Amino acid sequence: MNDIASGDLGPWLSPEDLDLVRRKVPILYIDALPVRVDAHGELEAVGLLLRATDAGTISRALVSGRVLFHETIRQALERHLEKDLGPMALPRLPLAPQPYAVGEYFPTPGSAFYDARQHAVSLAYIVPVVGDCRPSHDTLEMTWLTPAEALTPEVLGDMSEGHASLLRQALANLGRLR
Amino acid sequence: MNDIASGDLGPWLSPEDLDLVRRKVPILYIDALPVRVDAHGELEAVGLLLRATDAGTISRALVSGRVLFHETIRQALERHLEKDLGPMALPRLPLAPQPYAVGEYFPTPGSAFYDARQHAVSLAYIVPVVGDCRPSHDTLEMTWLTPAEALTPEVLGDMSEGHASLLRQALANLGRLR
Amino acid sequence: MNDIASGDLGPWLSPEDLDLVRRKVPILYIDALPVRVDAHGELEAVGLLLRATDAGTISRALVSGRVLFHETIRQALERHLEKDLGPMALPRLPLAPQPYAVGEYFPTPGSAFYDARQHAVSLAYIVPVVGDCRPSHDTLEMTWLTPAEALTPEVLGDMSEGHASLLRQALANLGRLR
Amino acid sequence: MNDIASGDLGPWLSPEDLDLVRRKVPILYIDALPVRVDAHGELEAVGLLLRATDAGTISRALVSGRVLFHETIRQALERHLEKDLGPMALPRLPLAPQPYAVGEYFPTPGSAFYDARQHAVSLAYIVPVVGDCRPSHDTLEMTWLTPAEALTPEVLGDMSEGHASLLRQALANLGRLR
Repeated sequence: MNDIASGDLGPWLSPEDLDLVRRKVPILYIDALPVRVDAHGELEAVGLLLRATDAGTISRALVSGRVLFHETIRQALERHLEKDLGPMALPRLPLAPQPYAVGEYFPTPGSAFYDARQHAVSLAYIVPVVGDCRPSHDTLEMTWLTPAEALTPEVLGDMSEGHASLLRQALANLGRLR
Repeated sequence: MNDIASGDLGPWLSPEDLDLVRRKVPILYIDALPVRVDAHGELEAVGLLLRATDAGTISRALVSGRVLFHETIRQALERHLEKDLGPMALPRLPLAPQPYAVGEYFPTPGSAFYDARQHAVSLAYIVPVVGDCRPSHDTLEMTWLTPAEALTPEVLGDMSEGHASLLRQALANLGRLR
Repeated sequence: MNDIASGDLGPWLSPEDLDLVRRKVPILYIDALPVRVDAHGELEAVGLLLRATDAGTISRALVSGRVLFHETIRQALERHLEKDLGPMALPRLPLAPQPYAVGEYFPTPGSAFYDARQHAVSLAYIVPVVGDCRPSHDTLEMTWLTPAEALTPEVLGDMSEGHASLLRQALANLGRLR
Repeated sequence: MNDIASGDLGPWLSPEDLDLVRRKVPILYIDALPVRVDAHGELEAVGLLLRATDAGTISRALVSGRVLFHETIRQALERHLEKDLGPMALPRLPLAPQPYAVGEYFPTPGSAFYDARQHAVSLAYIVPVVGDCRPSHDTLEMTWLTPAEALTPEVLGDMSEGHASLLRQALANLGRLR
């Protein structure tokens, strides 16, 4: 899960405050899996963010980030999708607030889903995007993969355990996990 | 639930065969609630079919019809939406095959949901439409209502018990049943 | 949503810390609707907590409370159900972590769901209980109502807008909102 | 999907009638995955039916069967669970009628899910059982497997493609597909 770098929206936390709340309460996140669908609603591809790490390897991820104070879940989805996919991605935000999966991450080594920074609870959504995806960060690329490509050990191995699980759950939910 | 008048798609049943299977097995239907959503995914309006009955009254209904032999659920949704809303409605078909509700109708008087013709099981979906809805039948109109308007006793009273329930369940599913 | 009175479990917040985080981030809650079901899985009754307010009126509510730091959603559900229904309630905790509804509460007057204390996001679950419910607090009682009784304006009027909506959504989800 | 051998319940079809309707309309089925859960609602094991085939191999399957004329989905679930697991299995039938997955089977060679006999649509449910499972048929056994065991290629390879997919989808739905 990515953190928020800039301070242009709203009630952002100072690094000190964020440190503090992260030691006190679970932090609410959203995760979004961008997808391409054909005219009949059939899944064509899933979009994964590709990032070069400092160590020279790559990592793949869903769109992910915190829900801010006073922000609705839908606004958080919209903000993070725009931040990571650019302003022309034209995401179709979910109609219903129920997530297809809930991720629980703990800062305890050995947890099924581990996040060194915090206890996080993430609501995950599948989001069709119909526009042009142009990640704005230098270090970020967007790749579209067929369901079969996305489920290869190579691709899953480039993802955190939590995101690999959310990807599998998304494909299962769409009836595309054979 | 409406029946199929024309014979342009595929393995249609003769009236005799339809009569026969209706006395033998549950018949599979789909129901679709057309909705308008804004750019943020927020529900703006629900679409109900308006029909003049022979008795001079009106009735309101969801898009509804049988799943044919050899037809997928998604194809059945697409066919019935086109039949009732015209070819320019541009429905966004559901990505996942799980319905938001399941309707069970029985030909037994006194059933919670009654259908004199048959035992029917209907899978219900919420379908955003972004194009122009032009019902092709003379007797049919499409009306868009806000969630509040749709939930008035007048509107619900123009619907069958089953469809009124599916409408309420859809609005509940979208978090819009206050 | 009820707050936590005692301090026997884990990483509790001091009142000062709770005040602070409530001004910084959305606070994660769970809501649980206790239900009685018959041997065939059919809903018989919903359980609402009944509380006498200082003003001499009564209020009705779902089981509700915060998710603590390092606590899973399922542990939070179990803890709050035991706190409010007693140790012999024998709740059947949900198998899947996906809530049937998500509540979003804002401290802004005029919000659809208003919570003066905080921005809260609540994951809501339907929880069959098969044992004996004995609320431990003096001021608390548990009442079982049929779906029809629960949906009367009198009962819904004793609930907060948010909880009344969650109750309706639960009955819709179970196909029992006619 | 298994067929119904005996004729003790209700509006059974003669072999001729069943042949006929199978050439005319999609046939409605239910699939049920029996599971064991611990006191906290955590999945412990999934139950698969084990059958010796005439060819001397074994096959594994979910509980599965047709919904009969005049029968509710819940009654069909109950009947097939009792038929395959015996009268002491004590299944906890689903509260809500929405399936966690929908299977579509076609008699067309090359279909994603193939059923030589018919076009079938199956609504799939996860069903905790708390009692004693004693399959009544000679040829039938019930085996309990941990999620990890159930997901091995050996086990999945003993299942039809459709049932293997429903099993994976069930584990994904429960957040147990890592």
